[in-house]
Amino acid sequence: MNWVERDAAVVWHGFTQMACYADNAPIVVERGVGRELIDTEGRRYLDAISSLWVTTLGHCVPELDEALRAQLDRVAHSTLLGNGNRIVIELAEALSRVVPVDRPHFLFASDGASGVEQALKIAFQFWVNRGVAGRNTYLAFGDAYHGDTIGSLSVGGSGFGTAIFDPLRFEVLRAPSFSNPDALKVAAAMVREHRARLAAVVVEPLVQGAAGMLIATSTEFAALQAACRAADVLLICDEVATGFGRTGTLFASEQCGLSPDILCLGKGITGGYLPMSATVASQRVFDAFLGADLSEATLYHGHSYGGNALAAAVALRHLELLHSMNVLANVRARSSQLRALLDTHVRPKVAVKDIRLVGLMGAVELDTRTDARLARRTCIAMVRRGVLCRSMGPVVTVVPPLTTTADEIERIVLTLAAALDEATS
Amino acid sequence: MNWVERDAAVVWHGFTQMACYADNAPIVVERGVGRELIDTEGRRYLDAISSLWVTTLGHCVPELDEALRAQLDRVAHSTLLGNGNRIVIELAEALSRVVPVDRPHFLFASDGASGVEQALKIAFQFWVNRGVAGRNTYLAFGDAYHGDTIGSLSVGGSGFGTAIFDPLRFEVLRAPSFSNPDALKVAAAMVREHRARLAAVVVEPLVQGAAGMLIATSTEFAALQAACRAADVLLICDEVATGFGRTGTLFASEQCGLSPDILCLGKGITGGYLPMSATVASQRVFDAFLGADLSEATLYHGHSYGGNALAAAVALRHLELLHSMNVLANVRARSSQLRALLDTHVRPKVAVKDIRLVGLMGAVELDTRTDARLARRTCIAMVRRGVLCRSMGPVVTVVPPLTTTADEIERIVLTLAAALDEATS
Ligand SMILES: Cc1ncc(COP(=O)(O)O)c(C=O)c1O
Ligand SMILES: Cc1ncc(COP(=O)(O)O)c(C=O)c1O
Repeated sequence: MNWVERDAAVVWHGFTQMACYADNAPIVVERGVGRELIDTEGRRYLDAISSLWVTTLGHCVPELDEALRAQLDRVAHSTLLGNGNRIVIELAEALSRVVPVDRPHFLFASDGASGVEQALKIAFQFWVNRGVAGRNTYLAFGDAYHGDTIGSLSVGGSGFGTAIFDPLRFEVLRAPSFSNPDALKVAAAMVREHRARLAAVVVEPLVQGAAGMLIATSTEFAALQAACRAADVLLICDEVATGFGRTGTLFASEQCGLSPDILCLGKGITGGYLPMSATVASQRVFDAFLGADLSEATLYHGHSYGGNALAAAVALRHLELLHSMNVLANVRARSSQLRALLDTHVRPKVAVKDIRLVGLMGAVELDTRTDARLARRTCIAMVRRGVLCRSMGPVVTVVPPLTTTADEIERIVLTLAAALDEATS
Repeated sequence: MNWVERDAAVVWHGFTQMACYADNAPIVVERGVGRELIDTEGRRYLDAISSLWVTTLGHCVPELDEALRAQLDRVAHSTLLGNGNRIVIELAEALSRVVPVDRPHFLFASDGASGVEQALKIAFQFWVNRGVAGRNTYLAFGDAYHGDTIGSLSVGGSGFGTAIFDPLRFEVLRAPSFSNPDALKVAAAMVREHRARLAAVVVEPLVQGAAGMLIATSTEFAALQAACRAADVLLICDEVATGFGRTGTLFASEQCGLSPDILCLGKGITGGYLPMSATVASQRVFDAFLGADLSEATLYHGHSYGGNALAAAVALRHLELLHSMNVLANVRARSSQLRALLDTHVRPKVAVKDIRLVGLMGAVELDTRTDARLARRTCIAMVRRGVLCRSMGPVVTVVPPLTTTADEIERIVLTLAAALDEATS
């Protein structure tokens, strides 16, 4: 058996139809170097999906490797339930200086979805602890994606195969998708109307990533925040995808003028090295959980590996590198270049319906009326040309590492253009 | 500020009342060595909770460190969505030789709760994919604990502060807690009665851990499995806590004669080093998800860091070490010794209500009628004596690493006895 066959025989890949796994040009990664992944046959691929939007600086970054090795010499993990770990404290202190949350407190987990679940439960219990009744629903957006566990799936929109799980999902109030230019205005009005029922609003600031990079106007978010403040409804920003520089600022909330009550972080937090997510609560939110020992005011939520020391060590070093390597400036420069090149080489093609880009989160939406697999086939053709890409429905995503170079951007766009030609010929 | 103050200022610890964090003798871990943790002041503690049941061989295990370093030289992470990673395939192959599941397929995540969520969704969609209507609920046990995300919280029992989240939880059929000796018989009868509504039964085989080590008779499980098979209801075994040797066999299912359709793994899978969980599905379950590309038959569930390469490398080496170090034999020997010593030194004390032990999962339940914080105070007194322990409600848990020595077991028991004397004097 070759590696792909061995893979398909024992590994169940998420969001993947396993019956066609081998036909969709999977690569079996063995090594990485810089922004390239190398498969078991020694073939090299430019990682243009950042391993599903997690890789920021690249693979095998010497400074991150060194931080990990140093922590490994101390301790890999110790529980955060009732006890602390020095490197985790240092990470939380460093993050507290940069997150757009008032006097923040960090509750760590590993999966991004768990970070969202923590946010939802914190917002819910916040009202119970304060003795306010009836605040038991959420306002979420159409086409939103917050992860796949039942709670995060409940606030997510209805795409991505969620419909069959409706009997398990709790109901939420639903504002329009960002594909509707009035989404944020409508959401603000809904907050005013339903304030007495709402525990919180949950939103992906600036861009609905998994929906195919649906971008809202950054200036529209202030009105939503104002409505939340006026109605005393908590605001949860899910920056699992947008955090840590992906949109050109450290957090997308900054561009939107948002200072959420609760912030969800994940993916890029460790530069793409290790599982880690965090739920960040403001002092006001945190304070509502203070009480007597063993009392009901306590948040009874915790994951075994929350605050893993190895992940924390990498995350801490990563945060320093984002700054010292001036990564955000590169994101903005490469984003402009990517936009221009996509406009020149990709937009004119007949199969292209729309191009959306913010920072280094890009989507080329194709017209898939005559071929539902067009985006899939385009990505397969890109992979054959050595650029690792992945489709989401009708969309080819372009999400390179944040340290990507001008040459790499050019290569990605020209490869995409050629692959699209091949797929449509 | 000292480390505990710095900790309390920025880190929100799960399952922890932060208002009393500093008063409950938290340790701020800086390093680990063997089965000891060392705090920022250089004080050493025997880790008698295995960092919440995750540590198996100890801290800073040279072989695990080496495996991690070797993988770090290759690649830390690459996405499993639509692509493979060599070390993950090797891990899945190695696990497939030892898990009690028929021709197993592995879907990885990071938090244990996510592994449970995956199991629940797979079981639910299994019936939808096969065109069987109405199989939309689960049978779960009283006092069960499966994690804190909304789906896993829904199948969990009603303790652990879950009641306030009832409006968010989906309903399940509830068999008795393992504290009822007829729990498994009643569950089997419920399976027969409600077969047409049941997607699956979810159970912690042998011991309900977080409930305070409530132990069922191993021979009682066969009848439940038989009822599931006869009624064609899927059986999900949650071995997040019991897996990887904790109960004296590699999996508790073995002792119970169980071969579940779906198995949940976590905690010990990486020896306590790195976040990883896995949902293991039998060939029959897996086959129900095969279909056309982009079709509805696909499982649309996946976590960004699922199948992390660093975690996989450690998990693979750990599995080899469990075998080569003959760890299971040690667990059984130390378990017998622990039982005898607890019977001699702890059981006679008036404050002791019950002692429960399976493998190296031990619980000393105290009579807390006159002092709700008695178990807590006993653990504080143990920590002051250099043995890291943690209470759950009225229970002092004793969960040392699987490589613990006879001397350490003796030290844990004598320390517990002395601490209890202090707390009750
Ligand atoms: C049986 C069982 N299932 C699931 C979980 C949840 O795992 P995690 O804390 O990693 O989310 C636990 C954790 O204690 C557990 O004991
Ligand atoms: C906005 C957002 N929230 C949450 C998640 C879930 O994170 P994870 O896949 O790590 O569970 C994602 C993942 O893509 C995301 O994009």
